[in-house]
Amino acid sequence: MSGLKISIIGAGSAVFSLRLVGDLCKTKGLSGSSVSLMDINKKRLNAVHNLAERYASELGANLKFEKATDMKRSIEGADFVINTALVGGHEQLAATRKAGEKHGYKGGIDRQEFNMVLDYPTLSNYNQLKYFLDVAHSMERRCPNAWLLQAANPVFEGTTLISRHSSIKVVGFCHGHSGVKTIVKSLGLDMKEVNWQVAGFNHNIWLTRFLYKDKDAYPLIDQWIEKESMKWKPKNPLDDHMSPAVIDMYQFYGRIPIGDSVRNGSWKYHFNLETKKKWYGEPWGGMDSELGWAWWQERLRTSMDKTFSLASDESISLLKEFPPDVKSREQHIPFIDALFNGDQERFVLNIPNKKSIIAGIPEDVVVEVPVIVDKEGIHPEEINPPIPKRIMSMYLAPRMLRMEWALEAFVSGDRRVLQEILIRDPRTKSFEQVKTVIDEILALPVNKEMEKHYKNKNNI
Amino acid sequence: MSGLKISIIGAGSAVFSLRLVGDLCKTKGLSGSSVSLMDINKKRLNAVHNLAERYASELGANLKFEKATDMKRSIEGADFVINTALVGGHEQLAATRKAGEKHGYKGGIDRQEFNMVLDYPTLSNYNQLKYFLDVAHSMERRCPNAWLLQAANPVFEGTTLISRHSSIKVVGFCHGHSGVKTIVKSLGLDMKEVNWQVAGFNHNIWLTRFLYKDKDAYPLIDQWIEKESMKWKPKNPLDDHMSPAVIDMYQFYGRIPIGDSVRNGSWKYHFNLETKKKWYGEPWGGMDSELGWAWWQERLRTSMDKTFSLASDESISLLKEFPPDVKSREQHIPFIDALFNGDQERFVLNIPNKKSIIAGIPEDVVVEVPVIVDKEGIHPEEINPPIPKRIMSMYLAPRMLRMEWALEAFVSGDRRVLQEILIRDPRTKSFEQVKTVIDEILALPVNKEMEKHYKNKNNI
Repeated sequence: MSGLKISIIGAGSAVFSLRLVGDLCKTKGLSGSSVSLMDINKKRLNAVHNLAERYASELGANLKFEKATDMKRSIEGADFVINTALVGGHEQLAATRKAGEKHGYKGGIDRQEFNMVLDYPTLSNYNQLKYFLDVAHSMERRCPNAWLLQAANPVFEGTTLISRHSSIKVVGFCHGHSGVKTIVKSLGLDMKEVNWQVAGFNHNIWLTRFLYKDKDAYPLIDQWIEKESMKWKPKNPLDDHMSPAVIDMYQFYGRIPIGDSVRNGSWKYHFNLETKKKWYGEPWGGMDSELGWAWWQERLRTSMDKTFSLASDESISLLKEFPPDVKSREQHIPFIDALFNGDQERFVLNIPNKKSIIAGIPEDVVVEVPVIVDKEGIHPEEINPPIPKRIMSMYLAPRMLRMEWALEAFVSGDRRVLQEILIRDPRTKSFEQVKTVIDEILALPVNKEMEKHYKNKNNI
Repeated sequence: MSGLKISIIGAGSAVFSLRLVGDLCKTKGLSGSSVSLMDINKKRLNAVHNLAERYASELGANLKFEKATDMKRSIEGADFVINTALVGGHEQLAATRKAGEKHGYKGGIDRQEFNMVLDYPTLSNYNQLKYFLDVAHSMERRCPNAWLLQAANPVFEGTTLISRHSSIKVVGFCHGHSGVKTIVKSLGLDMKEVNWQVAGFNHNIWLTRFLYKDKDAYPLIDQWIEKESMKWKPKNPLDDHMSPAVIDMYQFYGRIPIGDSVRNGSWKYHFNLETKKKWYGEPWGGMDSELGWAWWQERLRTSMDKTFSLASDESISLLKEFPPDVKSREQHIPFIDALFNGDQERFVLNIPNKKSIIAGIPEDVVVEVPVIVDKEGIHPEEINPPIPKRIMSMYLAPRMLRMEWALEAFVSGDRRVLQEILIRDPRTKSFEQVKTVIDEILALPVNKEMEKHYKNKNNI
């Protein structure tokens, strides 16, 4: 009987929450936990709560569930808080993106060098970053010893911000590193014989170590490129791990980018739809093109509809929909299990770069690195071999600066910082354009708080 | 009798060389030195040699002069080597700029964020950077204990490159910090009562300390802005120290940019001629506009013509042209004097950031900081107060990355690095444009060596 309390903030992201609940049901060491599902959308919350209770009961798992629409009530006395909330939802992202596109910023103003993933905004999402801090500060009062598992994006900016401005233990989560498996599978190798490391920032990680049966396995990638790459076609917009963009980045940087890092190249791969098709494959041009993104939104809608229909028909067996023997590839529940029961498990987590896990990155910046977790806590692996110099100076360093600039804007509330960041955007033609697009985004009804925050110091 | 040998490489830059010779004539502690004037342009070399000998003789200075067209011969046994050579001259810069402009890069491909000064190229000037290393490596054999005074631009990239790849003691020189005096004069203050520091990189320094009679003097700048700034008009394109661009940078970054840093803002001040006029004043729009640059080129031509006419008419008294009681504002000769005779003189020099003179900058990057020089060597001052965070992350850090990228291109000889740097240029619309402009620049007859250097690894 663990007796743990786990609070899931933004639990209305049904698929994600059910993955966590499913993992929890299948983790014996966490039997007896109670889960507080929190969301401000009651319809979604009720659906997820219904499914969670039914699934646990079908599996005979000993778990308790509660519902909450108030974040502070939900985290009261929690041992773990998982923040998965996207404040304002995809509608808000779409509204901001539309305002940007009106003024020449295709894909929105947040789409920047090395950060092309469309739902990873760092500039216009004041509400989201503010909520990250609200959760952390609320935890300081209501569950000061709890761990904050930050699942909502932007994980890089968010966890760095929280770790600098709160005493709460924060860890960022992403499943991007599972891209290693996709590559290993594409090469026809046995994952058990692979010795790998990834390192970098969230959505910006690289396969720094890749051995097969103790030998350098990069030549196997070279062979694949030579013999197989011309036959490659994406199965869907998400299928980008062996795309020409990856090969090009590998040949330039010397290592393979992993997970969403693939989508975060420079403008070379993103000038327009034609370019995207060339680098991420036909017909979609990857996830972050208008076609790929429409596909993704449709998939999210279908999945939500299914959630509602499953929730409304209690005669359906959930075990069929969510097989009992398969765990998700999310790390959250195994992490809690390892920390609570101590199994020396390996994860790839986002943690502050203390003691220079990655040399050359300041200690107050959060890095994504392999770690071992046990009862004592999180033990980062030594990154060996180190990240190549070219990746450091031409990819990670500029990406890190964008994080610093975004936090400088957020923390100072100085509208001129947002303007100056956009001045550095290749789509900008004049200062007037910058001023107008930012004013317009701040004037959106959803950005009332942001507008107030960025009001005072704008003397231009 | 100092008995020192000072070699001036690129001595055909007449005005500059005569400034150095003038300073030397007026420095008693360096009496008895011999000066090797080296240039590959014999006409210029003869003119400068003629003027140097005549000036020294008119002043009764005890100096010996020799001429050399071979760099290696000139530096043989030197104690100090001053490298002021612009390989290929302004003609070469103009040819490269023209190739860039043909493909949409107004002002040339080297014109980049925080590096808008038109004769400070960092990408297309393989010949120049290569020569920097040639001089340093030649010194290792012919005068291994000599100091290399790097006066030719790009000083930031050049001194960092040399300090990483040579054992020679290299120091970068610029007179940009004398902009402090211009500001003090504009405010009507007495320089003797001013306590100041500047810090940053060459062409990227900021007035980090500014006290007047021991009190913060920044409020005096605020007053000037409120009461005087609207009356400001530039006297010539070089007169930019109190321009609207400076005020805007000050109000955003919290400190005043000094010297050529003023010209190195972001694109905000440089979108086009109209923007430049707004920020650097009518009618020229500063030094780096087409109008300002034409003015500057004309001034260089006039000065060269005058040099030749003075050299050809020995009846002219040079003391009239170069008054005997005034020293130039160049630091080279006073630096040599301080090092040789030990006067605890203060300079602003470019030296490697050893022992973190500027916190947060790697130790193998050259910084421009105030130092005290005596017989023991160079003693950097503590930078106090430190450089504000916003200047570090939004100005110096991105400028430093551009230096790293330029050196990555130069050292690797990988054409794709040049391409990737240009992909990050806001004027770039497609990869094709990048490829074409670089190929065309490499095909210029002056860039034969560069083309060879960048040949091998270009697999795109």
